[in-house]
Amino acid sequence: MTQKGMVNGIDVDQLFKTIEQIKENSKIAFFKFRATNQWVSGTHCRGTVKDFYGALENDDTRPAVTYDMDEPPILLGNNDGRNPVEYLLVALSGCLTTALVAHSSAKGIKINGVRSRYEGDLDLRGFLGISEEVPVGYQEIRIFFTIDTEATVEQKKEMIKMAQKYSPVYNTITKSAPVKVQLEKN
Amino acid sequence: MTQKGMVNGIDVDQLFKTIEQIKENSKIAFFKFRATNQWVSGTHCRGTVKDFYGALENDDTRPAVTYDMDEPPILLGNNDGRNPVEYLLVALSGCLTTALVAHSSAKGIKINGVRSRYEGDLDLRGFLGISEEVPVGYQEIRIFFTIDTEATVEQKKEMIKMAQKYSPVYNTITKSAPVKVQLEKN
Repeated sequence: MTQKGMVNGIDVDQLFKTIEQIKENSKIAFFKFRATNQWVSGTHCRGTVKDFYGALENDDTRPAVTYDMDEPPILLGNNDGRNPVEYLLVALSGCLTTALVAHSSAKGIKINGVRSRYEGDLDLRGFLGISEEVPVGYQEIRIFFTIDTEATVEQKKEMIKMAQKYSPVYNTITKSAPVKVQLEKN
Repeated sequence: MTQKGMVNGIDVDQLFKTIEQIKENSKIAFFKFRATNQWVSGTHCRGTVKDFYGALENDDTRPAVTYDMDEPPILLGNNDGRNPVEYLLVALSGCLTTALVAHSSAKGIKINGVRSRYEGDLDLRGFLGISEEVPVGYQEIRIFFTIDTEATVEQKKEMIKMAQKYSPVYNTITKSAPVKVQLEKN
């Protein structure tokens, strides 16, 4: 596989160069992503993303971006934002799409368009503490992809499998990750 | 526990009423949350959240909200949005904060402020397919809460434990969830 230049808007030359650099020094591949959150009132809070660490240095050149989160009235909010479990689906959608496009591009597969839809089942008896037997998190998430490309149906299925194999958010959700929560030391 | 009226902006009367209704008919608690995604170019894609199903009916009264996702230049993007793994941290931040505030409110604990910060470790050798041994998803996520309330440190630690116990996003990540991905039937 030696694709050259831009494929689907991905600089494949740079991608392979990065892979070679990481093979020489694996520390380049170690990233720390960050966010902060501030509660506003009731079910309304605001997340912020700004800096990250990666490729051996801290990057705080990006402006801060804020994300309002709130619940609909049926869940005691005022719709001052979409809710956190919806943001989780958005994160998953972006990650699978990026993984699909990046890995297809590396293989030289030209893509005209990618669309996908997401639906997750949540039983609020978990969140509300009504039943200990009901899972608190999503019980199942279903995803449907439409890929506009000259590839065959079998190749499209392979592209979806690559997306699942290489997507960090997909793998965090399906394989779980340890999350440590504590009080800030003041 | 019989708190009345609004606590921390949460209508606790309505919360307890909802719990009673769900105890009578558990189907009220069954929600389906949804998102769609459209690829733009390269590592840039756009998620959209609009309708959901819950409390026995479909809600499509909310306007569509879009979320741009992209990578920084070091990850072959143009910063046309924050990236999917950052959105995952935002989702986690909103969910833990909402769970903390809702359950504290139900117990009558008054809160003046809640802030939290998130950091997740990601080794891109997984995403890039350089090493099969490296996890593709987050290796660890660390969270630090600052809670402004008259409660003691022990009570604040209990509030954090409640947030962890009842947050759907936290439990989806730490306990995993099945995700089914397929081609749309045309």
